[in-house]
Amino acid sequence: MSQYTKINLAARPEPGPITSALFEVVTDDVPAVGSGQVLIKQTYMSLDPAMIGWMSPDTDSYVPPVGLGEVMRSSGIGEVVDSQHPGFEVGDRVRGMMGWTEYCLSDGEGLSKVPEGVDEETLLSVFALPGVTAMKGLYGFGDPKAGETLVVSGAAGSVGSLVGQLGKADGLRVIGVAGDDEKCSWIVDELGFDGAINYKSDDIATKLAELTPDGIDIYFENTGGAIQQAVFDRMNAHGRIIVCGMIADYTAAEPSAGPNWIPMIKKRLTVRGFTVPDHYDEIPSLLEQLTPYVMSGKVKYRSHVLEGLESAIDGLNLFFTGGNRGKLIVKL
Amino acid sequence: MSQYTKINLAARPEPGPITSALFEVVTDDVPAVGSGQVLIKQTYMSLDPAMIGWMSPDTDSYVPPVGLGEVMRSSGIGEVVDSQHPGFEVGDRVRGMMGWTEYCLSDGEGLSKVPEGVDEETLLSVFALPGVTAMKGLYGFGDPKAGETLVVSGAAGSVGSLVGQLGKADGLRVIGVAGDDEKCSWIVDELGFDGAINYKSDDIATKLAELTPDGIDIYFENTGGAIQQAVFDRMNAHGRIIVCGMIADYTAAEPSAGPNWIPMIKKRLTVRGFTVPDHYDEIPSLLEQLTPYVMSGKVKYRSHVLEGLESAIDGLNLFFTGGNRGKLIVKL
Repeated sequence: MSQYTKINLAARPEPGPITSALFEVVTDDVPAVGSGQVLIKQTYMSLDPAMIGWMSPDTDSYVPPVGLGEVMRSSGIGEVVDSQHPGFEVGDRVRGMMGWTEYCLSDGEGLSKVPEGVDEETLLSVFALPGVTAMKGLYGFGDPKAGETLVVSGAAGSVGSLVGQLGKADGLRVIGVAGDDEKCSWIVDELGFDGAINYKSDDIATKLAELTPDGIDIYFENTGGAIQQAVFDRMNAHGRIIVCGMIADYTAAEPSAGPNWIPMIKKRLTVRGFTVPDHYDEIPSLLEQLTPYVMSGKVKYRSHVLEGLESAIDGLNLFFTGGNRGKLIVKL
Repeated sequence: MSQYTKINLAARPEPGPITSALFEVVTDDVPAVGSGQVLIKQTYMSLDPAMIGWMSPDTDSYVPPVGLGEVMRSSGIGEVVDSQHPGFEVGDRVRGMMGWTEYCLSDGEGLSKVPEGVDEETLLSVFALPGVTAMKGLYGFGDPKAGETLVVSGAAGSVGSLVGQLGKADGLRVIGVAGDDEKCSWIVDELGFDGAINYKSDDIATKLAELTPDGIDIYFENTGGAIQQAVFDRMNAHGRIIVCGMIADYTAAEPSAGPNWIPMIKKRLTVRGFTVPDHYDEIPSLLEQLTPYVMSGKVKYRSHVLEGLESAIDGLNLFFTGGNRGKLIVKL
C-alpha cells in the first residue's frame, strides 16, 4: 500500500510570521474508496490570504476555524484516481476544498469537474476565489461607473490585480497600491493601471493626491495599513469602500486604528465588508460574467508557483512580506 | 420704522465651546416687502447639532458653510406679517430656513404653510429635521426587523429618542446610550427602551454586554466617543451601522480614532453615513410614514425651550455638554 503526506494544523497562529511549529506533517497510507466515494490525487493547491483567518480561533469569523489536528483547509485541483461515486470517473479533473494533502477522499460534496482547455494556473488564479471575490466586491458593492476613480490596495495581488483590470475595462481611472517597484511597474506597464503607489517608499498622501486629482469614488481595500487613512481622506461624496482584506493587521499584536467617522457623514460614505461564503450561490453567474473579460484579453494574471506540499507553510508568509509575484499556487 | 435683531456668524469655531465672540448681534430696520416677497416674524427657531458643521469652514461638507457676516442658518416657524407674494397671506403660519433673526424676508422658496392643530414644539421636535432624520436613517439604511437588537447613541436626543421609539414600535430590542441618569431613566421609563447605558458613569463594555445578550444588529450612531468601539465589538454578522452624528468629535482638536476594520470583513458589516439634504425630495413621504407612529402615541418627545434670540448662542453648547432635556428650541 502506497503512502502519502498531509499537513494538519497543530496550533493557533501568534502575532508574527507563520512557522512550521503551527503544523504537523503526517505520512499515512493512501485510503481505499468506499461506496459513494472518490479518491483524488491533488495536483495544484491554492494559497489564499483567507487561510490566515481559517487558522485563527476567532469564532466570530464567517467560516469555522480549522480544528487543531485537522488537515489544513485549502482549495485545489486534482485527478480522480479511484471512484465508487456515480458522478466521477477515474481520470476526471476535479476541483474542491481538498486541503493540504497529496490525496483526499471525497463524497462528491462541493466537488466539480473542471472544463477542458483551461490550465490549472488559470483556473486557480482567475476562475476561483480571486475572480469570484473581485467580481462580487467590485460589481456587487462598488457600483463602478465610467469616469470614476478607483483605488485598489494589494493591487498586485490575485484579487487586487483583477479588480483594477476590471475597472480599467469599464472605463474607470484606476490607481493601485503595492509594496515594491517591480509590482508597481507590472500593474501599470503590463496591466494598464493609470498609476501606482509604492506604499513602502512613496510619500503616500502626496503621491495619492497627484494620482487622484478628482478625488476617489471607490476604494477596494485588501490590506489596511497607512494607505487606508490616506484614501479615506480623499474620498468623494457618496464614495464606496469595499473591505475585502486587512492582511496588514491579521497577525498584528495590536490592530491599527481605523479612520474617524466624521467623513462618513460629511461624504455620505458607505463602507461594506464582505466575504465570498455569503455568496456561494452566485459563484456560477459571477464566473460567467468574468469570462468575457478574460477571453477578450482584458484581464491578465500571473501565478507564483511553489513546489511541493510542505512549501505551503512558509508560502503563507509571502502574504505578509509581499514577496509573491502573482497568485500563490502549490504544485504537488 | 420698527427695528429687529439678527445674529450673524462672525468667525469660525475653534476646538472648545461655542462663544459669543463667534457671532455679531445686529440691530436693523425691519425691511419692507417687495413684489413677490413675504415678511415673516419668526416665533420659534430650531437648534440642531448640524449647525456646528454649518459654522465650520470645511468645504467638503454636504451643505456650504454659512458665510462670515451672513445671518446664522436655522429652520423655524413664524407668522406672515406682510405679503406681496400670491401664495401667502398675512396671518399664515409658515416654516422654512429663516436663520437667527426675529424677522426675515422670503421669496417663498423653501417656505411652506404648517398644518393647523399642531403646536410649534411638536412641529419642530418631531415633524422636522429630527423626524426626517430618524425615519430615513432607520428605515432607509437600517433594515430593522422584529426581534433584532438596536443600539442608539445620543438616545435622549431629538433624533435618538425617535429612532429608539420607532424600533420599539417595530418589535426590536432597543438599548439607548445617554450622558446622565435622568436621561437614562427617561428613555427607559417614559419611552419604553429596554435598557440604557450612562456612558459617563457605567462600565460601557460590561453594561453593553449585559444589555445585548444576543449581540447587536443595528447601531444608530449619533455621538461617536467610547461607545462606538464597544458597540462595534458586539456587532452581529450582517450588522448595519448608520452614522448620523459624531457630536463628541465635532469640535475636538484631534478627532478620535475609529475601530479597526477587520470586523467589517469577519462580520460583513455595512457602515453608512447619511445626511438629510441628499433626501429632500423624500421628506413629504418620510413625514407621512412617521405620522401614524406619532398619532397612535407610540412616539413621544420632549422639547427644551430657550427664551430669546441671543439664547441660541450658548444654547449650542448644550449639544456638547448634553445639558438639554429634549429638542432644543428657541422661542422668540
